[in-house]
Amino acid sequence: MEKVVKKITSMNENFGQWYTDIVINAELIDYSGVRGCIILRPYGYAIWENITKILDNRFKNVGVENVAMPLLIPESLLEKEKNHIAGFAPEVAWVTMGGQEKLTERLCIRPTSEVLFCSHFAKIIHSWRDLPKLYNQWCSVVRWEKTSRPFLRSIEFYWQEGHAVFAEKHEAKDFTLKMLKVYADFFKDILCIPVFIGQKTESEKFAGAEETYTIECMMKDGKALQSATSHYFGTGFSNAFDIVFQDKKNKSSLVSYVSWGLATRVIGGIIMVHGDNNGLIMPPDVAPIQIIIIPIKYEENNEVFKKSNEIFENLKKDFRVKIDVSSQTPGWKFSEYEMKGVPIRLEIGPKDIEKNQCVLARRDSHEKIKCNLDVLNEELRKIFIKIKLNLYLKAEKFMKSKVFSAKNWEEMLNLKNSNGFLKTFWCGDKQCEEKVKNELGLSSRCMPLEQNEIEGICPICNKRPAITEIFWGKSY
Amino acid sequence: MEKVVKKITSMNENFGQWYTDIVINAELIDYSGVRGCIILRPYGYAIWENITKILDNRFKNVGVENVAMPLLIPESLLEKEKNHIAGFAPEVAWVTMGGQEKLTERLCIRPTSEVLFCSHFAKIIHSWRDLPKLYNQWCSVVRWEKTSRPFLRSIEFYWQEGHAVFAEKHEAKDFTLKMLKVYADFFKDILCIPVFIGQKTESEKFAGAEETYTIECMMKDGKALQSATSHYFGTGFSNAFDIVFQDKKNKSSLVSYVSWGLATRVIGGIIMVHGDNNGLIMPPDVAPIQIIIIPIKYEENNEVFKKSNEIFENLKKDFRVKIDVSSQTPGWKFSEYEMKGVPIRLEIGPKDIEKNQCVLARRDSHEKIKCNLDVLNEELRKIFIKIKLNLYLKAEKFMKSKVFSAKNWEEMLNLKNSNGFLKTFWCGDKQCEEKVKNELGLSSRCMPLEQNEIEGICPICNKRPAITEIFWGKSY
Repeated sequence: MEKVVKKITSMNENFGQWYTDIVINAELIDYSGVRGCIILRPYGYAIWENITKILDNRFKNVGVENVAMPLLIPESLLEKEKNHIAGFAPEVAWVTMGGQEKLTERLCIRPTSEVLFCSHFAKIIHSWRDLPKLYNQWCSVVRWEKTSRPFLRSIEFYWQEGHAVFAEKHEAKDFTLKMLKVYADFFKDILCIPVFIGQKTESEKFAGAEETYTIECMMKDGKALQSATSHYFGTGFSNAFDIVFQDKKNKSSLVSYVSWGLATRVIGGIIMVHGDNNGLIMPPDVAPIQIIIIPIKYEENNEVFKKSNEIFENLKKDFRVKIDVSSQTPGWKFSEYEMKGVPIRLEIGPKDIEKNQCVLARRDSHEKIKCNLDVLNEELRKIFIKIKLNLYLKAEKFMKSKVFSAKNWEEMLNLKNSNGFLKTFWCGDKQCEEKVKNELGLSSRCMPLEQNEIEGICPICNKRPAITEIFWGKSY
Repeated sequence: MEKVVKKITSMNENFGQWYTDIVINAELIDYSGVRGCIILRPYGYAIWENITKILDNRFKNVGVENVAMPLLIPESLLEKEKNHIAGFAPEVAWVTMGGQEKLTERLCIRPTSEVLFCSHFAKIIHSWRDLPKLYNQWCSVVRWEKTSRPFLRSIEFYWQEGHAVFAEKHEAKDFTLKMLKVYADFFKDILCIPVFIGQKTESEKFAGAEETYTIECMMKDGKALQSATSHYFGTGFSNAFDIVFQDKKNKSSLVSYVSWGLATRVIGGIIMVHGDNNGLIMPPDVAPIQIIIIPIKYEENNEVFKKSNEIFENLKKDFRVKIDVSSQTPGWKFSEYEMKGVPIRLEIGPKDIEKNQCVLARRDSHEKIKCNLDVLNEELRKIFIKIKLNLYLKAEKFMKSKVFSAKNWEEMLNLKNSNGFLKTFWCGDKQCEEKVKNELGLSSRCMPLEQNEIEGICPICNKRPAITEIFWGKSY
């Protein structure tokens, strides 16, 4: 019995269902017995593995070292920094029993690890010679969310959290932006995703941070996905945790502190930036399978058997490649790997072999290219570059088409259902931010790092002078 | 003020303190605020990272795919396999609160993930075409141990757990032993640790398993460290979890199940197999730093500055190398990196540069080798091979000197304090195993896979016929 390739709901019909169909049918995840905790299946986990390898290298290139902090945080430790606990206490999971015994102090499963890093820093940092410390860990964290969607919001999720301390405030600020730049480059070069880079407003910043910077991406439904963040904490945490060092003049000083993070959420971003009605479209650098070889008229030991296996062995040296010699029809295989978003399908049959060629079909553009087998590896390398560029430019074009500038409240009102980002001036006042949220249903996404000249008054209150540009949008 | 290299207690004086001094002074770990949960510091985590990279590759080479299962297990799910829950329920951490709400069902933090993998397998396996599934995950697990020692026993520890299901029992059995072989080769080729390979007795096997196979290593105090295990479960779990498939004859069949695991505990093994009174000795393939360059008479822009940095840049392409240009004295640096177990120290000063050479000092043998700079990389590659062989042979010699054969109970009694392994025949009866435990203070380590001819009666009960060889020893 031939398997039927499962159908994906059209994204125009129901974007949410389209998304769910992809994560399930492409076998990225399975639901587990615990609400909000998903299973990353091999195809989904491989995407995360590829992301972590590349990003980990980039972190190491700027001097970051990996460590592993405990999973559990005593309640008293979590409470040490007041703004931080206020942000996280309502949404943590509490361990109250160890074996048969009731614990004397509750332990929470880390929702994030600032307090663990800070209490460790306080122990190991004594002198300016010990600074800076640039640490990172890859782990999962738990936040007791009320609703959940695979990758986008879940009780347990995987991420990296970087934590660094510096002697000087300006070093810490520079580093906060440096890591934001590492993310922005990664999104562009590797994920082929254009980004908005900017600062969060007071009310949207991370619990305990002085400044939060964000990478915001636009999904195909026009909503924003906050995709990575970098936080400058000043000396708030080091004051609470007593992270003190002797500076070069032998004076006691507080360190300045930075953290930055990116989660499996980004896989949701890849789906919703690049995917289409046939399924996933994977950027080549993080695709679990970069090339799928589908031999036509394949029989044990015939010419196609020999040639396609020879090609497979040869490509394996340079690419993540798979050959599908199962008994499914070529048509089924075409749909299956299209749905899984494999960037290149390589078809080879008896006629191709006669001409010493194969057919390469691009997932992104549906272009079919005849390729001489003698130059296959070089040709593929070139095509991957073209695919990446095409994915990026397509996404950028879409993004730009969905940013709407508004000069006054009336324009803002008219644009409120435009399914994109609104770009306006803003006075920086919280009341105006609240008004946009309540009356337009849009939250502040970020104040872009690069701004045009600011002039005139705030279009929301129509009274205070504008001090910044800002993006508003609906978000995940 | 010059830092003082911290002193390591002599292992003859106090082996336990020697071990603790190394893990702390070499900056492998720090204690956290939660009993039994340690912090892996950069130098300690890098060892684990190197281990995971190599082992992960070897798993992938036999077709294993990585996945990620949830951290949390509902109590009812943990209870599904009766022998398994009996083994683990007493030692798990229970989450009873999520945010502000009391949970209707307690969730435990995974102590191991058999039940999670099995319930997933039950969902995704339908036909013989879906088999085998060879899965693995890298994660941390939590077991509420009463006592703890860094790496050897802790409440939270890092490991990999592989889980695989097969159509046929014999395939599953073969795979159980295949993974044991992957471990044994890894210990020999990469960690330079000789191993005892064998089967655990009924009373020492894993909760729920039909057969448990183990890698046992001998530490420098003569104690055993169970360092990796591979379990054959038969169809016990698939029966409890209803993991059924249609076989080729269209009949419903239960899958056969295997799991295998190796933990950060192995880092404790590296310390106690190779270490000496000056500190750690790292096997080159997993050493965070393989070569430490210590320039002599180094000044900004002098000849030594130029040459040592040139060497550093050149070695970086092939090795994990570090250059220490801090203001500490060469003597301090020598001790520090000796303590950290860096395999090769490269010294270079003005006189060496005149002769176009450097001095290579081996951590394992304290040998000093003059090396022409033109052939440095090749020479180092050769020396690393020699180091690995030397580490392995030294450890093997020690291990062999600590295995004592005993033919009867009297010999066993005499050897009970010999600080090593006793090798005897055994009838397979639990009472005899208990007797050895109670009267000699030794537990059964394993019944070796390769055995001599078995003859005569069991030396413990002196009555039943011997059916196997067995190792007894004290263990961590």
